[in-house]
Amino acid sequence: MKYCSSCGSSVTRRVPNGDNRERFVCDACGTIHYQNPKIVTGCLPIYGDQVLLCRRAIAPRSGLWTLPAGFLENGETSTQGAVRETLEEACANVAVEGLYTVFNLPHISQVYMFFRAELLDLDFSPGFESTDVRLFREHEVPWDELAFPVIHDTLRHYFADRPSGVFPVRVGDIDHSPRR
Amino acid sequence: MKYCSSCGSSVTRRVPNGDNRERFVCDACGTIHYQNPKIVTGCLPIYGDQVLLCRRAIAPRSGLWTLPAGFLENGETSTQGAVRETLEEACANVAVEGLYTVFNLPHISQVYMFFRAELLDLDFSPGFESTDVRLFREHEVPWDELAFPVIHDTLRHYFADRPSGVFPVRVGDIDHSPRR
Repeated sequence: MKYCSSCGSSVTRRVPNGDNRERFVCDACGTIHYQNPKIVTGCLPIYGDQVLLCRRAIAPRSGLWTLPAGFLENGETSTQGAVRETLEEACANVAVEGLYTVFNLPHISQVYMFFRAELLDLDFSPGFESTDVRLFREHEVPWDELAFPVIHDTLRHYFADRPSGVFPVRVGDIDHSPRR
Repeated sequence: MKYCSSCGSSVTRRVPNGDNRERFVCDACGTIHYQNPKIVTGCLPIYGDQVLLCRRAIAPRSGLWTLPAGFLENGETSTQGAVRETLEEACANVAVEGLYTVFNLPHISQVYMFFRAELLDLDFSPGFESTDVRLFREHEVPWDELAFPVIHDTLRHYFADRPSGVFPVRVGDIDHSPRR
Protein backbone atom coordinates (compact mmCIF):
# COMPACT_ATOMS: atom_id res chain seq x y z
CA MET A 1 0.00 0.00 0.00
CA LYS A 2 1.46 3.30 -1.15
CA TYR A 3 -1.55 5.59 -1.60
CA CYS A 4 -4.67 6.36 0.41
CA SER A 5 -7.70 4.68 -1.16
CA SER A 6 -9.93 7.47 0.19
CA CYS A 7 -8.08 10.60 -1.00
CA GLY A 8 -5.15 9.41 -3.17
CA SER A 9 -2.38 10.96 -1.03
CA SER A 10 0.72 9.01 -0.05
CA VAL A 11 0.37 6.91 3.10
CA THR A 12 2.95 6.45 5.85
CA ARG A 13 3.53 3.44 8.07
CA ARG A 14 3.31 4.32 11.76
CA VAL A 15 1.54 3.54 15.03
CA PRO A 16 -1.62 5.69 15.19
CA ASN A 17 -2.53 7.51 18.42
CA GLY A 18 -4.18 5.09 20.84
CA ASP A 19 -3.04 2.05 18.90
CA ASN A 20 -0.17 -0.32 19.60
CA ARG A 21 0.90 -1.51 16.18
CA GLU A 22 1.95 -0.03 12.85
CA ARG A 23 -0.73 0.75 10.26
CA PHE A 24 -0.84 2.49 6.93
CA VAL A 25 -2.02 6.02 7.83
CA CYS A 26 -3.02 8.92 5.58
CA ASP A 27 -1.85 12.17 7.14
CA ALA A 28 -3.80 14.16 4.54
CA CYS A 29 -7.32 12.87 5.33
CA GLY A 30 -6.67 10.97 8.55
CA THR A 31 -7.81 7.55 7.33
CA ILE A 32 -6.20 4.56 9.04
CA HIS A 33 -6.01 1.61 6.66
CA TYR A 34 -6.38 -1.54 8.75
CA GLN A 35 -5.35 -4.84 7.19
CA ASN A 36 -6.73 -8.04 8.68
CA PRO A 37 -6.70 -11.79 8.03
CA LYS A 38 -8.96 -13.32 5.42
CA ILE A 39 -11.22 -16.35 5.80
CA VAL A 40 -11.00 -19.27 3.39
CA THR A 41 -14.15 -21.39 3.55
CA GLY A 42 -14.84 -24.74 1.95
CA CYS A 43 -16.54 -28.12 2.10
CA LEU A 44 -15.61 -31.71 2.71
CA PRO A 45 -18.21 -33.26 0.35
CA ILE A 46 -19.11 -36.80 1.43
CA TYR A 47 -20.92 -39.44 -0.63
CA GLY A 48 -21.30 -42.71 1.26
CA ASP A 49 -17.77 -43.89 2.01
CA GLN A 50 -16.23 -41.51 -0.52
CA VAL A 51 -15.01 -37.91 -0.39
CA LEU A 52 -14.87 -35.48 -3.29
CA LEU A 53 -11.59 -33.83 -4.26
CA CYS A 54 -10.71 -31.33 -7.00
CA ARG A 55 -7.50 -31.25 -9.02
CA ARG A 56 -6.26 -27.67 -9.09
CA ALA A 57 -6.02 -25.94 -12.47
CA ILE A 58 -4.41 -22.82 -11.01
CA ALA A 59 -1.46 -21.72 -8.91
CA PRO A 60 -0.52 -22.29 -6.19
CA ARG A 61 -0.07 -26.06 -6.31
CA SER A 62 -1.55 -26.55 -9.74
CA GLY A 63 -2.11 -30.25 -10.48
CA LEU A 64 -2.48 -31.24 -6.84
CA TRP A 65 -5.73 -32.31 -5.15
CA THR A 66 -7.77 -30.11 -2.87
CA LEU A 67 -11.13 -29.70 -1.23
CA PRO A 68 -13.33 -27.03 -2.81
CA ALA A 69 -12.64 -23.79 -0.91
CA GLY A 70 -11.96 -20.11 -1.45
CA PHE A 71 -12.11 -16.65 0.07
CA LEU A 72 -15.27 -15.75 1.93
CA GLU A 73 -16.97 -12.81 0.22
CA ASN A 74 -18.54 -9.76 1.86
CA GLY A 75 -22.22 -10.24 2.59
CA GLU A 76 -22.22 -14.03 2.85
CA THR A 77 -21.99 -16.47 5.75
CA SER A 78 -19.10 -18.91 5.99
CA THR A 79 -21.59 -21.70 5.28
CA GLN A 80 -22.92 -19.96 2.17
CA GLY A 81 -19.37 -19.34 0.99
CA ALA A 82 -18.47 -23.00 1.40
CA VAL A 83 -21.50 -24.08 -0.65
CA ARG A 84 -20.73 -21.46 -3.34
CA GLU A 85 -17.09 -22.55 -3.64
CA THR A 86 -18.18 -26.18 -3.96
CA LEU A 87 -20.52 -25.24 -6.77
CA GLU A 88 -17.88 -23.07 -8.49
CA GLU A 89 -14.93 -25.47 -8.27
CA ALA A 90 -16.69 -28.84 -8.54
CA CYS A 91 -20.12 -27.93 -9.97
CA ALA A 92 -21.33 -30.03 -7.04
CA ASN A 93 -24.49 -29.67 -4.97
CA VAL A 94 -24.09 -30.22 -1.24
CA ALA A 95 -26.06 -29.93 1.98
CA VAL A 96 -23.88 -28.66 4.81
CA GLU A 97 -23.94 -30.83 7.95
CA GLY A 98 -21.73 -28.74 10.22
CA LEU A 99 -18.46 -26.91 10.81
CA TYR A 100 -15.66 -29.45 11.06
CA THR A 101 -12.15 -27.94 10.95
CA VAL A 102 -10.73 -24.49 11.65
CA PHE A 103 -7.07 -23.76 10.88
CA ASN A 104 -5.05 -20.67 11.70
CA LEU A 105 -2.34 -19.86 9.15
CA PRO A 106 -0.78 -16.80 10.79
CA HIS A 107 2.21 -16.67 8.42
CA ILE A 108 -0.16 -15.80 5.56
CA SER A 109 -2.87 -14.18 7.73
CA GLN A 110 -5.60 -16.63 6.80
CA VAL A 111 -8.14 -18.67 8.76
CA TYR A 112 -9.53 -21.77 7.02
CA MET A 113 -12.95 -23.20 7.82
CA PHE A 114 -14.14 -26.52 6.40
CA PHE A 115 -17.70 -27.80 6.68
CA ARG A 116 -18.77 -31.44 6.44
CA ALA A 117 -21.32 -31.67 3.64
CA GLU A 118 -23.43 -34.35 2.04
CA LEU A 119 -22.91 -34.58 -1.72
CA LEU A 120 -26.50 -34.62 -2.97
CA ASP A 121 -25.98 -36.26 -6.37
CA LEU A 122 -23.29 -37.44 -8.81
CA ASP A 123 -23.83 -34.55 -11.21
CA PHE A 124 -20.46 -32.89 -10.61
CA SER A 125 -17.70 -31.77 -12.97
CA PRO A 126 -14.61 -29.53 -12.96
CA GLY A 127 -15.24 -25.81 -12.58
CA PHE A 128 -12.90 -23.18 -14.04
CA GLU A 129 -10.32 -23.61 -11.29
CA SER A 130 -10.21 -27.42 -11.54
CA THR A 131 -9.03 -29.91 -14.17
CA ASP A 132 -10.65 -32.95 -12.56
CA VAL A 133 -13.14 -33.77 -9.82
CA ARG A 134 -13.35 -37.27 -8.40
CA LEU A 135 -14.67 -39.33 -5.51
CA PHE A 136 -12.14 -41.23 -3.40
CA ARG A 137 -12.47 -43.96 -0.82
CA GLU A 138 -10.02 -43.68 2.09
CA HIS A 139 -7.45 -46.04 0.53
CA GLU A 140 -7.69 -44.20 -2.80
CA VAL A 141 -6.92 -40.71 -1.46
CA PRO A 142 -3.77 -39.33 -3.14
CA TRP A 143 -2.13 -38.45 0.17
CA ASP A 144 1.17 -37.48 -1.47
CA GLU A 145 -0.54 -35.23 -4.00
CA LEU A 146 -2.66 -33.07 -1.70
CA ALA A 147 -2.31 -29.35 -2.26
CA PHE A 148 -2.18 -28.02 1.30
CA PRO A 149 -1.65 -29.19 4.88
CA VAL A 150 -5.21 -28.06 5.76
CA ILE A 151 -6.54 -30.58 3.22
CA HIS A 152 -4.38 -33.36 4.63
CA ASP A 153 -5.40 -32.62 8.20
CA THR A 154 -9.12 -32.31 7.42
CA LEU A 155 -9.15 -35.66 5.58
CA ARG A 156 -7.07 -37.34 8.29
CA HIS A 157 -9.45 -36.13 11.00
CA TYR A 158 -12.45 -37.25 8.97
CA PHE A 159 -11.31 -40.80 8.36
CA ALA A 160 -10.25 -41.08 12.03
CA ASP A 161 -13.60 -39.80 13.29
CA ARG A 162 -15.81 -41.64 10.83
CA PRO A 163 -15.91 -45.02 12.62
CA SER A 164 -17.41 -43.33 15.69
CA GLY A 165 -19.85 -41.19 13.71
CA VAL A 166 -18.93 -38.26 15.99
CA PHE A 167 -17.29 -35.26 14.37
CA PRO A 168 -16.22 -32.64 16.92
CA VAL A 169 -14.92 -29.37 15.52
CA ARG A 170 -11.13 -29.52 15.23
CA VAL A 171 -9.02 -26.39 15.61
CA GLY A 172 -5.39 -26.33 14.58
CA ASP A 173 -2.50 -24.04 13.71
CA ILE A 174 -0.51 -24.62 10.54
CA ASP A 175 3.13 -23.63 10.79
CA HIS A 176 5.26 -22.00 8.11
CA SER A 177 6.28 -25.12 6.22
CA PRO A 178 4.16 -25.48 3.08
CA ARG A 179 4.26 -29.30 3.12
CA ARG A 180 4.85 -31.47 6.14
CA MET B 1 -12.56 3.24 -2.05
CA LYS B 2 -11.84 5.92 -4.67
CA TYR B 3 -8.14 5.56 -5.44
CA CYS B 4 -5.80 2.66 -6.11
CA SER B 5 -3.62 1.98 -3.06
CA SER B 6 -0.84 0.68 -5.35
CA CYS B 7 -0.54 3.51 -7.91
CA GLY B 8 -2.86 6.34 -6.75
CA SER B 9 -5.06 6.35 -9.89
CA SER B 10 -8.85 6.41 -9.68
CA VAL B 11 -10.50 3.01 -9.36
CA THR B 12 -13.67 1.83 -11.08
CA ARG B 13 -16.27 -0.66 -9.85
CA ARG B 14 -16.78 -3.54 -12.26
CA VAL B 15 -16.64 -7.31 -12.67
CA PRO B 16 -13.06 -8.28 -13.58
CA ASN B 17 -12.42 -10.79 -16.35
CA GLY B 18 -12.92 -14.32 -15.05
CA ASP B 19 -14.71 -13.13 -11.93
CA ASN B 20 -18.43 -13.09 -11.19
CA ARG B 21 -18.87 -10.11 -8.87
CA GLU B 22 -18.03 -6.42 -8.80
CA ARG B 23 -14.66 -5.32 -7.41
CA PHE B 24 -12.74 -2.08 -7.22
CA VAL B 25 -10.37 -2.30 -10.18
CA CYS B 26 -7.50 -0.04 -11.20
CA ASP B 27 -7.38 0.24 -14.98
CA ALA B 28 -4.04 2.07 -14.78
CA CYS B 29 -1.98 -0.64 -13.04
CA GLY B 30 -4.39 -3.57 -13.23
CA THR B 31 -4.70 -4.17 -9.48
CA ILE B 32 -7.98 -5.73 -8.31
CA HIS B 33 -8.82 -4.60 -4.78
CA TYR B 34 -10.64 -7.45 -3.08
CA GLN B 35 -12.59 -6.71 0.08
CA ASN B 36 -13.43 -9.57 2.40
CA PRO B 37 -15.03 -10.17 5.80
CA LYS B 38 -13.11 -9.59 9.00
CA ILE B 39 -12.78 -11.90 11.98
CA VAL B 40 -13.62 -10.71 15.48
CA THR B 41 -12.07 -12.99 18.09
CA GLY B 42 -12.59 -13.04 21.83
CA CYS B 43 -12.82 -15.02 25.05
CA LEU B 44 -15.47 -16.20 27.44
CA PRO B 45 -13.35 -15.96 30.63
CA ILE B 46 -14.59 -18.37 33.29
CA TYR B 47 -13.73 -18.36 36.99
CA GLY B 48 -15.51 -21.12 38.89
CA ASP B 49 -19.22 -20.43 38.47
CA GLN B 50 -18.61 -16.86 37.28
CA VAL B 51 -17.98 -15.28 33.87
CA LEU B 52 -16.09 -12.07 33.22
CA LEU B 53 -17.73 -9.21 31.34
CA CYS B 54 -16.45 -5.76 30.35
CA ARG B 55 -18.48 -2.56 30.28
CA ARG B 56 -17.80 -0.80 26.99
CA ALA B 57 -16.18 2.64 27.12
CA ILE B 58 -16.46 3.17 23.37
CA ALA B 59 -19.01 3.16 20.57
CA PRO B 60 -20.88 1.21 19.45
CA ARG B 61 -22.99 0.34 22.50
CA SER B 62 -20.96 2.32 24.97
CA GLY B 63 -22.04 1.52 28.54
CA LEU B 64 -23.29 -1.98 27.73
CA TRP B 65 -21.60 -5.22 28.78
CA THR B 66 -19.57 -7.40 26.47
CA LEU B 67 -17.06 -10.21 26.34
CA PRO B 68 -13.50 -9.12 25.55
CA ALA B 69 -13.12 -9.34 21.77
CA GLY B 70 -11.77 -7.45 18.79
CA PHE B 71 -10.48 -7.68 15.26
CA LEU B 72 -7.98 -10.44 14.54
CA GLU B 73 -4.66 -8.92 13.46
CA ASN B 74 -2.43 -10.05 10.62
CA GLY B 75 0.19 -12.55 11.77
CA GLU B 76 -1.67 -13.96 14.77
CA THR B 77 -3.89 -16.99 15.31
CA SER B 78 -7.51 -16.57 16.34
CA THR B 79 -6.56 -18.03 19.73
CA GLN B 80 -3.70 -15.56 20.18
CA GLY B 81 -6.00 -12.71 19.18
CA ALA B 82 -8.61 -13.77 21.74
CA VAL B 83 -5.99 -13.84 24.52
CA ARG B 84 -4.60 -10.45 23.41
CA GLU B 85 -8.02 -8.81 23.38
CA THR B 86 -8.75 -10.19 26.84
CA LEU B 87 -5.52 -8.69 28.13
CA GLU B 88 -6.17 -5.35 26.37
CA GLU B 89 -9.82 -4.89 27.38
CA ALA B 90 -9.87 -6.54 30.81
CA CYS B 91 -6.17 -6.71 31.76
CA ALA B 92 -7.03 -10.34 32.45
CA ASN B 93 -4.85 -13.43 32.09
CA VAL B 94 -6.55 -16.48 30.63
CA ALA B 95 -5.74 -19.98 29.42
CA VAL B 96 -7.80 -20.89 26.37
CA GLU B 97 -9.71 -24.17 26.67
CA GLY B 98 -11.23 -24.36 23.19
CA LEU B 99 -13.25 -22.73 20.43
CA TYR B 100 -16.85 -22.40 21.58
CA THR B 101 -19.01 -20.17 19.35
CA VAL B 102 -18.77 -19.02 15.72
CA PHE B 103 -21.24 -16.43 14.42
CA ASN B 104 -21.70 -15.20 10.88
CA LEU B 105 -22.79 -11.57 10.62
CA PRO B 106 -23.13 -11.22 6.85
CA HIS B 107 -24.84 -7.79 7.00
CA ILE B 108 -21.61 -6.29 8.37
CA SER B 109 -19.25 -8.86 6.79
CA GLN B 110 -17.86 -10.16 10.07
CA VAL B 111 -17.31 -13.60 11.57
CA TYR B 112 -17.09 -13.78 15.37
CA MET B 113 -15.18 -16.51 17.18
CA PHE B 114 -15.34 -16.94 20.97
CA PHE B 115 -13.07 -19.24 22.94
CA ARG B 116 -13.84 -20.69 26.36
CA ALA B 117 -10.99 -19.66 28.65
CA GLU B 118 -10.03 -20.17 32.27
CA LEU B 119 -9.46 -16.88 34.10
CA LEU B 120 -6.13 -17.56 35.80
CA ASP B 121 -6.31 -15.03 38.64
CA LEU B 122 -8.37 -12.13 39.98
CA ASP B 123 -5.84 -9.50 38.91
CA PHE B 124 -8.05 -7.88 36.25
CA SER B 125 -9.11 -4.27 35.65
CA PRO B 126 -10.61 -2.12 32.89
CA GLY B 127 -8.44 -1.58 29.82
CA PHE B 128 -8.69 1.54 27.67
CA GLU B 129 -11.85 0.36 25.92
CA SER B 130 -13.68 -0.57 29.15
CA THR B 131 -15.03 1.38 32.11
CA ASP B 132 -15.60 -1.65 34.33
CA VAL B 133 -14.76 -5.34 34.43
CA ARG B 134 -16.65 -7.71 36.71
CA LEU B 135 -17.40 -11.35 37.40
CA PHE B 136 -21.02 -12.47 37.20
CA ARG B 137 -22.80 -15.61 38.32
CA GLU B 138 -25.57 -16.75 35.97
CA HIS B 139 -28.37 -14.99 37.88
CA GLU B 140 -26.30 -11.80 38.05
CA VAL B 141 -25.68 -11.46 34.29
CA PRO B 142 -27.15 -8.16 33.03
CA TRP B 143 -29.08 -9.83 30.21
CA ASP B 144 -30.86 -6.61 29.22
CA GLU B 145 -27.63 -4.65 29.10
CA LEU B 146 -25.54 -6.86 26.83
CA ALA B 147 -23.89 -5.07 23.93
CA PHE B 148 -24.44 -7.54 21.07
CA PRO B 149 -26.51 -10.61 20.16
CA VAL B 150 -23.28 -12.66 19.88
CA ILE B 151 -22.61 -11.98 23.57
CA HIS B 152 -26.14 -12.98 24.56
CA ASP B 153 -26.00 -16.19 22.51
CA THR B 154 -22.53 -17.20 23.75
CA LEU B 155 -23.55 -16.76 27.41
CA ARG B 156 -26.86 -18.51 26.87
CA HIS B 157 -25.14 -21.49 25.27
CA TYR B 158 -22.57 -21.58 28.06
CA PHE B 159 -25.02 -21.66 30.94
CA ALA B 160 -27.12 -24.26 29.10
CA ASP B 161 -24.11 -26.49 28.42
CA ARG B 162 -22.41 -26.09 31.79
CA PRO B 163 -24.46 -28.67 33.73
CA SER B 164 -23.32 -31.37 31.29
CA GLY B 165 -19.70 -30.23 31.22
CA VAL B 166 -19.77 -30.76 27.44
CA PHE B 167 -19.23 -27.70 25.25
CA PRO B 168 -19.63 -28.49 21.55
CA VAL B 169 -18.76 -25.71 19.13
CA ARG B 170 -21.88 -23.72 18.29
CA VAL B 171 -22.26 -22.07 14.88
CA GLY B 172 -24.95 -19.47 14.24
CA ASP B 173 -25.99 -16.69 11.93
CA ILE B 174 -26.98 -13.32 13.33
CA ASP B 175 -29.58 -11.47 11.32
CA HIS B 176 -29.81 -7.75 10.65
CA SER B 177 -31.54 -6.74 13.85
CA PRO B 178 -29.01 -5.26 16.28
CA ARG B 179 -30.94 -6.44 19.37
CA ARG B 180 -33.36 -9.32 19.48
